[in-house]
Amino acid sequence: MQKIDTTTIVVDPFNTDFQRRWTWPMLGKTLLNAAENHAVKRGFGMMDLNNRRYTWVLSRLAIEMEQMPKVYDTLAVSTWIENIYRLFTNRNFSIKGEDGTVFGYARSIWAMIDYDTRQPAQLEQMEGEVFQQFLLPEEPCPIAPQGRVRPLADEDFVKAHHAKYSDIDMNSHVNSIKYVEHIMDLFSIDDYAAERNLHRLEIAYMAESRYGDLLSFFRRQVDDDTYEVEVRKDFIPGGDRGTPVVRALLKF
Amino acid sequence: MQKIDTTTIVVDPFNTDFQRRWTWPMLGKTLLNAAENHAVKRGFGMMDLNNRRYTWVLSRLAIEMEQMPKVYDTLAVSTWIENIYRLFTNRNFSIKGEDGTVFGYARSIWAMIDYDTRQPAQLEQMEGEVFQQFLLPEEPCPIAPQGRVRPLADEDFVKAHHAKYSDIDMNSHVNSIKYVEHIMDLFSIDDYAAERNLHRLEIAYMAESRYGDLLSFFRRQVDDDTYEVEVRKDFIPGGDRGTPVVRALLKF
Repeated sequence: MQKIDTTTIVVDPFNTDFQRRWTWPMLGKTLLNAAENHAVKRGFGMMDLNNRRYTWVLSRLAIEMEQMPKVYDTLAVSTWIENIYRLFTNRNFSIKGEDGTVFGYARSIWAMIDYDTRQPAQLEQMEGEVFQQFLLPEEPCPIAPQGRVRPLADEDFVKAHHAKYSDIDMNSHVNSIKYVEHIMDLFSIDDYAAERNLHRLEIAYMAESRYGDLLSFFRRQVDDDTYEVEVRKDFIPGGDRGTPVVRALLKF
Repeated sequence: MQKIDTTTIVVDPFNTDFQRRWTWPMLGKTLLNAAENHAVKRGFGMMDLNNRRYTWVLSRLAIEMEQMPKVYDTLAVSTWIENIYRLFTNRNFSIKGEDGTVFGYARSIWAMIDYDTRQPAQLEQMEGEVFQQFLLPEEPCPIAPQGRVRPLADEDFVKAHHAKYSDIDMNSHVNSIKYVEHIMDLFSIDDYAAERNLHRLEIAYMAESRYGDLLSFFRRQVDDDTYEVEVRKDFIPGGDRGTPVVRALLKF
């Protein structure tokens, strides 16, 4: 079996923003789906793992877009595994137009965890042999690896949100893509004006949160075009600092 | 060209709820996409209309599900036009499994409006001849037509929400499916327990709302399993009643 999978999709009009651009959450879901489909075909999809009481956990995601596809654009979304390590694996993506135009690239890092103990599995030991035949480190993914977002200060608090029914995924945790949506909503619609594309999004998933959890969002402007975001659960202003759940970086 | 279109889709794991059921918003988007694709192929998709300075507006949507598909189910989603009237047209849907199992049906009502004046067009006069060849009133859609949801009282107020960036669609209005998501979040996750499926959702779109609009959500319990919902913009508690934007009915 080949190492890389490519899916063709069309940007539909119900997943575009006010500039008729594809939305970042829909882009994110499309990447996760491409990853899952690639894994299913090769015997290590989520259901395969679930049967063995393991599951995939997305640890980090970095997406960099030269330009965001627009409504009715036809896209070729490719994914492949770059490498496997002791406790995690990294998987890359490209998003191109029908004619080969590059829209962007993405990098992701995944851990396999024990469904019951939530402890990371010895991935290389368990899947090394299976994965070896699919590794494609030479395939170019010309975007920088994800950096580190520092903890934000309590003073950077912007808003709080109790996790709702629609935030929750099939593992009973807040959906990794829903964080992207909530983070994007920390910005005004003017920040997404036609001449000011969001260029890069990095997101690090640090802990799980559940229905009803109080999620507090912090935002700090780093320079003209760059913002750091932190999401913490159980933050009490003037009291408990809470637990970091997500840290993100947005570069316009 | 045939009158009915059927699309095959698989319920992906990133659009399922904590019970591994397909989400209602994703079901809604899938129906709207099926409608749009059906229309595009026959020459009256949104872009065709936009070129003539018209657009489709979804006026009402009623969905009734015997059961909600689960993750990895393969579905056949069909859509056809039931009839055309002076100012609107109705389009129906069926959602079935690979083996023909009925998951559910839906009914929708659409108006064509002038892009600039926002006034409804004389649909039958403009499109009657084109539509005539695609009408399929005899195709069964065995669910009740949508009823009327009465206005709710100010005392039924539950929460307010300022429309955010991610609420806004390509026409710069709040996305019709985003209302469904916000409405579903008026209920606790316990209301969506395995043994208590949401059976029917009716939604009537009465006015458009935009970025920054203050949307107030009202909810009234009608009986053990039935709730009415209203969304109004510019409601001021104890002051202005505001303008009804959406009315909905949920039957568990």
